[in-house]
Amino acid sequence: MNAELIAVGTELLLGEIANTDGQFISRCLSELGINLYYHTVVGDNPARLASVLKQAAGRSDLVITTGGLGPTYDDLTKEVIAETMGKKLVLHEPSLKRLKEHMEKFGRTMTKNNEKQAWLPEGCIVLDNDWGTAPGAIVEGEGCTVIMLPGPPRECEPMMLYRVMPYLQEREKGVILSQTVRIFGMGESAVENRLAELMKSATNPTVAPYAKEGEVLIRVTARAETKEEAEELIAPMLDRLHQELGHAIYGTDVASMEKALVEALAQKGMTLATAESCTGGLVSQKITSVPGASAVFYGGVVSYADGVKEDVLSVPLKVLAKHGAVSEPVAAYMARGVCRITGSDIGIGITGIAGPSGGSEEKPVGLVYVGLCVKGAVMVRKLNLGGIGRDRDMIRHLAALNAMHMVLEYCRK
Amino acid sequence: MNAELIAVGTELLLGEIANTDGQFISRCLSELGINLYYHTVVGDNPARLASVLKQAAGRSDLVITTGGLGPTYDDLTKEVIAETMGKKLVLHEPSLKRLKEHMEKFGRTMTKNNEKQAWLPEGCIVLDNDWGTAPGAIVEGEGCTVIMLPGPPRECEPMMLYRVMPYLQEREKGVILSQTVRIFGMGESAVENRLAELMKSATNPTVAPYAKEGEVLIRVTARAETKEEAEELIAPMLDRLHQELGHAIYGTDVASMEKALVEALAQKGMTLATAESCTGGLVSQKITSVPGASAVFYGGVVSYADGVKEDVLSVPLKVLAKHGAVSEPVAAYMARGVCRITGSDIGIGITGIAGPSGGSEEKPVGLVYVGLCVKGAVMVRKLNLGGIGRDRDMIRHLAALNAMHMVLEYCRK
Repeated sequence: MNAELIAVGTELLLGEIANTDGQFISRCLSELGINLYYHTVVGDNPARLASVLKQAAGRSDLVITTGGLGPTYDDLTKEVIAETMGKKLVLHEPSLKRLKEHMEKFGRTMTKNNEKQAWLPEGCIVLDNDWGTAPGAIVEGEGCTVIMLPGPPRECEPMMLYRVMPYLQEREKGVILSQTVRIFGMGESAVENRLAELMKSATNPTVAPYAKEGEVLIRVTARAETKEEAEELIAPMLDRLHQELGHAIYGTDVASMEKALVEALAQKGMTLATAESCTGGLVSQKITSVPGASAVFYGGVVSYADGVKEDVLSVPLKVLAKHGAVSEPVAAYMARGVCRITGSDIGIGITGIAGPSGGSEEKPVGLVYVGLCVKGAVMVRKLNLGGIGRDRDMIRHLAALNAMHMVLEYCRK
Repeated sequence: MNAELIAVGTELLLGEIANTDGQFISRCLSELGINLYYHTVVGDNPARLASVLKQAAGRSDLVITTGGLGPTYDDLTKEVIAETMGKKLVLHEPSLKRLKEHMEKFGRTMTKNNEKQAWLPEGCIVLDNDWGTAPGAIVEGEGCTVIMLPGPPRECEPMMLYRVMPYLQEREKGVILSQTVRIFGMGESAVENRLAELMKSATNPTVAPYAKEGEVLIRVTARAETKEEAEELIAPMLDRLHQELGHAIYGTDVASMEKALVEALAQKGMTLATAESCTGGLVSQKITSVPGASAVFYGGVVSYADGVKEDVLSVPLKVLAKHGAVSEPVAAYMARGVCRITGSDIGIGITGIAGPSGGSEEKPVGLVYVGLCVKGAVMVRKLNLGGIGRDRDMIRHLAALNAMHMVLEYCRK
C-alpha cells in the first residue's frame, strides 16, 4: 500500500508550527510497513487543497489529512474531501450528541459553528475523538481511501494510534511489532558506530537508532504472520543489543526516564525528594507527570534564590559564600537538606549555570553539580553540559536527565 | 512572488525527524511577505523528486529545496535540479578549494565522494556554506528561480538567514510585518465569533486567530512599502482588538505567559514563590525557563506528599484532615506558607486532581484550587479543568497557566 500525507493549515506555511503530525504519522506508517512517498502542506484554501487532494488520490492508495476539521469558517478539509470524492455531508447524530454533552458539561453554549463538526461524508467510518471535539473519518473511495484527522497534535496523535492504526493493521496482512531500547550516556554516532554492521545486516527485525533530546532510542522492528512470531524474531536481537550496549541501556519499551525511575523506586520501596536550583522544578515536574508518582515522590524545594537554599534547605551561609551557589558542597547540602525536611529516603540536589548569561571562565554555562543523598550518605557528580547548540532549555533538560539517571543507577545497583 | 518548499530526504518520510527546516524557511519568507503556498516532502528518489520539482517550477516563482546536497550516493537533489532546469554540472573551483581546506583542517582525507559537493549547476550563484561542507546555490531559470540548501538545520538555518534572505530582500519590494496578540480565558470559537466580521473584512492588515494549548493567539499581518507604513496599518487594528477583547488580552508580541509574568513582576518590583501540589513544579519550571527570572522568583516548594504540606509549608494537620488536600483552605495555607518561608511578596498555592485516577463525584479529575497570597492577604480561585481530551499533562498545563495569569492580573491592577 502506498500512502501520502496532506497537512492543511496556513499556520504551517507561515512557519508558526512545524509539521509534527506529519512526523508522528510517518513513524506509525513506517511501523506498519506502508510506503509513504509524499508529505504535502497546503494552506486553508479550498481550491489549492482540492487540487492537492485530487493529485494524491490519483497516485496513492491511502491519503491521510491532518487539520481543518475545527468549527471555524476556514476549517474546510471535510468539505473539500467530500466534494472531491463525490460524497454529500450528512449530520452524524451520535457525534452531535457527543458534542452537545461535551458543551453542556463545561457550561458552554452550542453554536452553529460547533454543530458543523458533526457533519461528515455519507457512508464514512466515523472516528470518535476522545481527546477533542472534532471527530475524524475514513472515507473509502474507489482506488483510494482518505482518512481525515484533527490537526492539534494532542488529538491527532492518539487518534492515529487508537483509531487509525487498528483499521490499517486489519487491512494490512501480518503484523509488525516494534520494541524500543532506550540509551543514556552515549551519543548517537557512538551508538551507530558500534552497531554499524548489525544495522546493515539486520533485515527482519530491522534495527534503527534515533536521537531524542539527550537520549538515543533504538527501535527493533519485526514483521511476521503472528504477534508471537514477531516477538520470537525480536528477542535475540534485544539480547544482542544488551551484549553490545548493556551498560548504557536503561529501559526497553519504557515511555521515559521519569517513568523508568518511578517504577524502579517503587520496586525498591524507596522515596525521593528533589532540591533544584538551575533546573527550577523541571525534575519534580517530570517525575510528577507520571501517574502514580505520589507513591514514591514526596516533593521538593526549588531553591532558586540563595536565601531559600539557606533558610529552607539549611545550606550554610559560609559554604555559599566560600564556594558559590554552583559548587560541589552546595549540591551535597541541598540533597541532604531536602531529605531532612521531607523525610525521604533519597534526595537530589541540582545546582548549575543554565545560561545564557551567568557563566565565567572558571564556571562556564553548562556546569552543573548533581548531589545524591541516600540515607545520609552523599555523592556529587560534576557535569559539563554546555556546547554548540546547547541552549538554556537543553542544558536544563540534560541536567534533569542526568539527575534522574543517577537515582535510577542507584536503584538498580 | 509565490514560493514553495521541497524537502528531500527519506528520513522525513520515515518520521525520524520533523521538517523543522520547512518551518524555519516559512517564517523567513513570511517576514518578507513572500506568499508560500506549498511544502512538499519527497524521499531520496530521483524520479519522484524530478516530478515534484517540475510541478513546482511550473506553478511558483521561487522554489527552495532542502537536503540531498551531501557527499553520499543517495544525495541527488543537485543532479535532479540541474537536469530539470537544463543546466550542466560544472566543477566550482573555489568550492573545491574550501572543501580541501576544510578536510585538511580536520585531518580528513578528501575522497571522490566529497569532491562531488563542489560540482554545481553552470551559471548559478554559489552560496558559501560556513556551517558545513556542502555549498548551496541559486539557479535562476526562466519564470522560476530554484534555491538549494543543505538539510541539517544547523547548516540550513544560517544559510537561509545570511545567504538567501539578503538575495530575496533585494528582489522583493516592500515588507510584511506581523504582531501577535495573546489571549487567555476565552476559547477559540468564542474569539472567532466575536471577531467573525472583522476577520472577513480585514485585508491589510489581516487578522487570524489560532489556538495554542489553552491560549488563543491572534496574528495581525500588514504589508506595506516600509516598516513604518506597516506599523501604521497594524496600530489601529490592535486598538480595535483591545476594544473587542481587552479583558482577555494579556500581551502583544510576548513569547509566553511566563515571560509576560516575569516582566510584569519586574516592573512592579515584586517577588514570587510557588507552592505546588498537582502541578508538581511545572509553574516554577516554566517561570525559571525565562532567562533572568532570578530577579523576581525566589523559588518554591513542591508539596506532593501531605507531610511536606504540613512540615514545610505549615498547613495544619486538622485542616488537611477536615477538608482534604484538594481544598480551598489548603490552597490558601500553601500560598501563605511559601511566602513565609521564602520571604517573597507574592505566593501561589496550587492543589488539585490531575488524574487520571484520584477523582470522585465530589472532587472530579480537573478540580484545582489556586491560592494567591499578596503580603498576607489571600484569595483562592476554584477551577474545573477536566473534560474530553484533557489528560493529566493538559490539566497540569492549564492549572499552571491559570495560576500565572492570576498573578499577572494582580500585577496589572
